[in-house]
Amino acid sequence: MKPINVALIGLGTVGCGVYQTFHIHKERLEELAGSPICISTIVIEHPEKHNKLPPEVNVTTDLLAVANDPEIDVVFEAIVGKEPAFSFLKKCIAGKKHVITANKEMFAAHGKELKSLAESYGTKIGFEATTAGGIPIIQTIQQLLQANQVKSVQAILNGTSNFILTAMRVEGLTFAEALSNAQKWGYAEADPTNDVEGYDALYKLQILSDLIFREQPETGRVKRLGIRDITADKITKSQKSCERIKHVATLEYDSKGNLTGSVEPLSLEENHPLYAVEGVNNAIYLKTDILGDLTLTGPGAGAFPTASAMVEDFCTILKKEQHLTVLS
Amino acid sequence: MKPINVALIGLGTVGCGVYQTFHIHKERLEELAGSPICISTIVIEHPEKHNKLPPEVNVTTDLLAVANDPEIDVVFEAIVGKEPAFSFLKKCIAGKKHVITANKEMFAAHGKELKSLAESYGTKIGFEATTAGGIPIIQTIQQLLQANQVKSVQAILNGTSNFILTAMRVEGLTFAEALSNAQKWGYAEADPTNDVEGYDALYKLQILSDLIFREQPETGRVKRLGIRDITADKITKSQKSCERIKHVATLEYDSKGNLTGSVEPLSLEENHPLYAVEGVNNAIYLKTDILGDLTLTGPGAGAFPTASAMVEDFCTILKKEQHLTVLS
Repeated sequence: MKPINVALIGLGTVGCGVYQTFHIHKERLEELAGSPICISTIVIEHPEKHNKLPPEVNVTTDLLAVANDPEIDVVFEAIVGKEPAFSFLKKCIAGKKHVITANKEMFAAHGKELKSLAESYGTKIGFEATTAGGIPIIQTIQQLLQANQVKSVQAILNGTSNFILTAMRVEGLTFAEALSNAQKWGYAEADPTNDVEGYDALYKLQILSDLIFREQPETGRVKRLGIRDITADKITKSQKSCERIKHVATLEYDSKGNLTGSVEPLSLEENHPLYAVEGVNNAIYLKTDILGDLTLTGPGAGAFPTASAMVEDFCTILKKEQHLTVLS
Repeated sequence: MKPINVALIGLGTVGCGVYQTFHIHKERLEELAGSPICISTIVIEHPEKHNKLPPEVNVTTDLLAVANDPEIDVVFEAIVGKEPAFSFLKKCIAGKKHVITANKEMFAAHGKELKSLAESYGTKIGFEATTAGGIPIIQTIQQLLQANQVKSVQAILNGTSNFILTAMRVEGLTFAEALSNAQKWGYAEADPTNDVEGYDALYKLQILSDLIFREQPETGRVKRLGIRDITADKITKSQKSCERIKHVATLEYDSKGNLTGSVEPLSLEENHPLYAVEGVNNAIYLKTDILGDLTLTGPGAGAFPTASAMVEDFCTILKKEQHLTVLS
């Protein structure tokens, strides 16, 4: 039986998680796929650093070779930044490959274009891993809320910020101390700007916005405030009112019907669905018109949660593909 | 274009919710279905009590007429008790109808048989509404956790018990007072046995068990304890330890590999994912092997949340049906 050939782009935390997941759960995934699955190519910047990969894997620095290889069926893209990812994925789609991405910055900027390109080429694009790590929020909205319309979203979409705010409150640390701990534990980068200034959460909010409302808030209707100004004093004051400060991403229509987005620290009351979301967890609180309020909580980052999101996308794509194959 | 003909069995809280949802969201649902949707028949015990239904709806007491009507495509079953529901749904499936049920007692006992019957007749069976009201837990497990294996479940599956326990803690009420309030608010039946003794939660746990583990715990490995013995004293004591008493349904394998199930009051620590689930809400906390821990929280009962679950099943069935139709 012809194997499903997979290319993996990037072998950082997420890429390694995907690679290991395919190995650990090989049998189960191949049973679901109905075919052998072969990670045939891995693209990395420094192949010399990864000399433990099995010899049958083609380890290369050459993205173009992957895009042009007709034997590759599915591309897992786990690198950062808009480019070269966007140009590369466009080529992959034009080459009739399914693509699964964890690249939020790229997808927040170019997701709409990639989705429409994929539609025109009859390929599938999975982007569950771009938003809220392992929490299946994208597929919940795509597959499970068809009759329901989502009216608004409030979410904790950045685990680093939530870890820092939790540590400040629980351990009585300053922002600088909590950030330093987050960096020690591997929850924050050496340059934490993306996380603590709310850029990362905003990318995810834009992706959710495209999905739910088919548009993003206009630049003038987006507010982005980080958590650097949250002092121990503010945390204590919030606690005294039985509240907790959380870095909340919000998507809603204002009274004039304009879509607005914000990422900002808010002091939440005890009965707010995001109040109890602690540490590196993420959560998404949706208001819908039939079901009512639904909250999903889970790991917002990490090798295996993110790999889970990508591999679940892979399973969904194969399921759809099987329909298509039977049809043709 | 031929309409999709729907029969609605029962016009209690849930049945009315479904009826109203089809009316309020008619345009959206017909767009999703790609056809007109017509509630052609309603089966109720006392048609004379429902004289406001439009004349084009066939209002009857005759279940057999529905099961034998070749024009009916989908049956929404929203009555209580194993019979006549089970015998009726078997006939509907044999008549090649898709069925969508909210009947947890019946489905806990006969779900396995109905699922296998539906498979043999090539029809679909939706049972999202049997478990945790509007929370899409069934479809999350069926559709979104394909690569992941669920290892254990802890859940709050009965809104009435959770409402009572919350009111006892927050308002300092006795069990009897809180129950009486729940009855006043319409959250508890005149005979509350099913809810407060854990039968209702156990039905839902059995349905989850069939779905996740393809079996139910043997009778000797099931523990069911209600909340009648929870005194104001016990609540206070739990609170003093910064804990909360919740009525928790658990499904897990013991150290010998036997599947066990329990529904019992447990005092949960503040960092437990079910600690903050209050009032009539339900929540399901899943431990999975790739993703990690995922918690879904939302309305566990009520006309529209439960109708949402049934109507989302309807959309999923139509989507699958469209594939099947194209194939045939």
